[in-house]
Amino acid sequence: MSLIKQPITGMKDILPREMEIRDYVMDVVKDTYKSFGFVSIDTPCMEHIENLLSKQGGDNEKLIFKILKRGEKLHVAEAISEEDIVDGGLRYDLTLPLARYYSNHQNELPSPFKALQMGYVWRADRPQKGRFRQFMQCDIDIIGDGSNIAEISLIVATSSLLSRLGFKDFTVRVNDRRILKAMAAYSGFSEDKMDEIFIILDKMDKIGIDGVKEELIANGFESEKVEKYIELFSNLKPDAEGLEQCKEILADYIDTDIIDKLLQIFAMVGGTRDTSFALTFDPTLVRGMGYYTGTIFEIGMEGYSGSVAGGGRYDEMIGKFTGNSAPAIGFSIGFERIIMILMENGFKIPSSKEKKIYLTEKNISNAKLAEILAFTKVERANGRIVQITPMKKNKKFQKEQLEAEGYTEIIEIYNDEQ
Amino acid sequence: MSLIKQPITGMKDILPREMEIRDYVMDVVKDTYKSFGFVSIDTPCMEHIENLLSKQGGDNEKLIFKILKRGEKLHVAEAISEEDIVDGGLRYDLTLPLARYYSNHQNELPSPFKALQMGYVWRADRPQKGRFRQFMQCDIDIIGDGSNIAEISLIVATSSLLSRLGFKDFTVRVNDRRILKAMAAYSGFSEDKMDEIFIILDKMDKIGIDGVKEELIANGFESEKVEKYIELFSNLKPDAEGLEQCKEILADYIDTDIIDKLLQIFAMVGGTRDTSFALTFDPTLVRGMGYYTGTIFEIGMEGYSGSVAGGGRYDEMIGKFTGNSAPAIGFSIGFERIIMILMENGFKIPSSKEKKIYLTEKNISNAKLAEILAFTKVERANGRIVQITPMKKNKKFQKEQLEAEGYTEIIEIYNDEQ
Repeated sequence: MSLIKQPITGMKDILPREMEIRDYVMDVVKDTYKSFGFVSIDTPCMEHIENLLSKQGGDNEKLIFKILKRGEKLHVAEAISEEDIVDGGLRYDLTLPLARYYSNHQNELPSPFKALQMGYVWRADRPQKGRFRQFMQCDIDIIGDGSNIAEISLIVATSSLLSRLGFKDFTVRVNDRRILKAMAAYSGFSEDKMDEIFIILDKMDKIGIDGVKEELIANGFESEKVEKYIELFSNLKPDAEGLEQCKEILADYIDTDIIDKLLQIFAMVGGTRDTSFALTFDPTLVRGMGYYTGTIFEIGMEGYSGSVAGGGRYDEMIGKFTGNSAPAIGFSIGFERIIMILMENGFKIPSSKEKKIYLTEKNISNAKLAEILAFTKVERANGRIVQITPMKKNKKFQKEQLEAEGYTEIIEIYNDEQ
Repeated sequence: MSLIKQPITGMKDILPREMEIRDYVMDVVKDTYKSFGFVSIDTPCMEHIENLLSKQGGDNEKLIFKILKRGEKLHVAEAISEEDIVDGGLRYDLTLPLARYYSNHQNELPSPFKALQMGYVWRADRPQKGRFRQFMQCDIDIIGDGSNIAEISLIVATSSLLSRLGFKDFTVRVNDRRILKAMAAYSGFSEDKMDEIFIILDKMDKIGIDGVKEELIANGFESEKVEKYIELFSNLKPDAEGLEQCKEILADYIDTDIIDKLLQIFAMVGGTRDTSFALTFDPTLVRGMGYYTGTIFEIGMEGYSGSVAGGGRYDEMIGKFTGNSAPAIGFSIGFERIIMILMENGFKIPSSKEKKIYLTEKNISNAKLAEILAFTKVERANGRIVQITPMKKNKKFQKEQLEAEGYTEIIEIYNDEQ
């Protein structure tokens, strides 16, 4: 019987060249975040279907790969709807599993809990270029620290990570959900319309400020309010000065302590950062997920649309599990995005090991082979990659292939010395 | 709405202490195998249900977590059996995905192809102590090398790995499926009965040689043949000498080149190995999977029943995908087993980094915080783990906790110097 050679639609096999870069990036991610005191954790890839469908995940809940019940619990013929036959699903992000994990193990965990997670997540999205149905996510989260130090740690850690990976021209954009709301309130919009407004505002990247204005009006918002709203965006400076403007303009609509916290982030991150990346205040930054409650941030890369990392504060989600709320904040890097950018730019792993290979003739003698085995042992101990492989008939082609794989020393071994 | 805190039955959340060891072991695995010229690859966790149910996986095929079809392809109410509603499943091992991967990408891969895979697999087994429904597998395979050098590389690489992890008292047991068959033929059993015999023989670990004898007779095998068979096992020495005995006794039932190849493995692995582990010929070694065609091996650990690693040659499986057969051989280490043994023995990670923490008082000034951020940057660059965290009201308890987490330097920071 012949089998299907292709992977499942929308998922991909990872070839050695890409995997080498992925392994390297995973190492740098772990090493960097651990140096900031984050600790690795892991959760099962599968979660209870009830949790996955609890409305924490927004649109992602429509994209779940669901797991069939098994054995006696499964009655296919009698089933009427999905609920009858499904008891689990693959996680669509790492935030929901983290909230469950924290609520389950709170007493065994450090406080504050600084978690690092790297793992696959699944979304049955329409397949498109560069977007897969299984992809790696990489999140850091701090649970139990409501202070600004959490914000600063996340941003400093993630920008350090990107710098270590050789990225220079990136921009960390910062906003606060409460500034978003204050700006809408200042313009005269009522609380219950805000979600609708923010969904439109979130399209700024694609349709520009004029597009946002048009769409707001097209959606029935009064043009006077819309004018006031749009003018506000146009006037705000994209930096600490813009925050000072907000403090003045929005004074009646927001606790100015919130803005002072952002100013502190600007001062602190600005002070330690390499000059290689930019830090901006972006009052148009929305971040899709409804669970964010405070600071939000996103990192964009010169020359690439969309973001390479994003996150924010979600102080209410943990309470949904535990009953006791706990402050929480997370930053998620777009692992697949970063790998794609590195691959496109012909990324070379710094200080990779020297590669050496011994090609043995057919029926190599035990004496010769024992000798080489002893050599290779020492060479590996000295930090090299070394292998022994039978010589092929087309030796020239074999050597060309090996050179292409990065083998710089290719030694032919014969029973009789040559 | 409150959510379910426990992970899915039979799966586990991994706490930071275990995860630290897992991360370390994964690093050592990758570093060791890569130094032998293996290259990392990865495949999707999900496979086509047709491939998973193609009879390559033996009993594991009964334990598949199946994935529900989605969207227009799913008609629950009309469904009669599982086939109607399922299109994928979670992989139960890494060998089938490797065979599919190789057949899909053969022309883009090195030859021979030396693959390293680490990834989760899923089996809906009955949950029991130390056995989980999601677990990490870690496989090395060589495809396209039919020579003995492949066998020797796998065994040397895996025993090096175990030595690097600090294991000493382990035993590498080697056999060949063709010796198994020759011994049965020599005793007078017919070819078509051999699978049944080997299933009984495979229980040797649990029921001993007398148990095997009894069960064979109970299953209707002639006692004369059984006597001859059992006596043969009793007479064979568990080393190269035993192989020489086989060469003589089984000469009419096996190509003696096969035994000479095992003798070469003994000489070569024996020559380079640290004296810390034992290498034995074990004519009772069966290995369950039906796809093995030649050499088989298993590693056992003093004081632990069962094996910590196992593998063998499966020269026919690749042909089932490609139509063209390719020699293949693999070694799988029992990652979860190894982690469990290390945890039980209070394993300490060698040369872990020094940990330092700054505890800041409430409302720490920007000037102070900027100063500490600058310190931490330098300290991290010097190889330390350093974090900044708000001081708690119960400072004494906080410090005790931090000491338990391995923080050796705990610095309190106040706005006014103390």
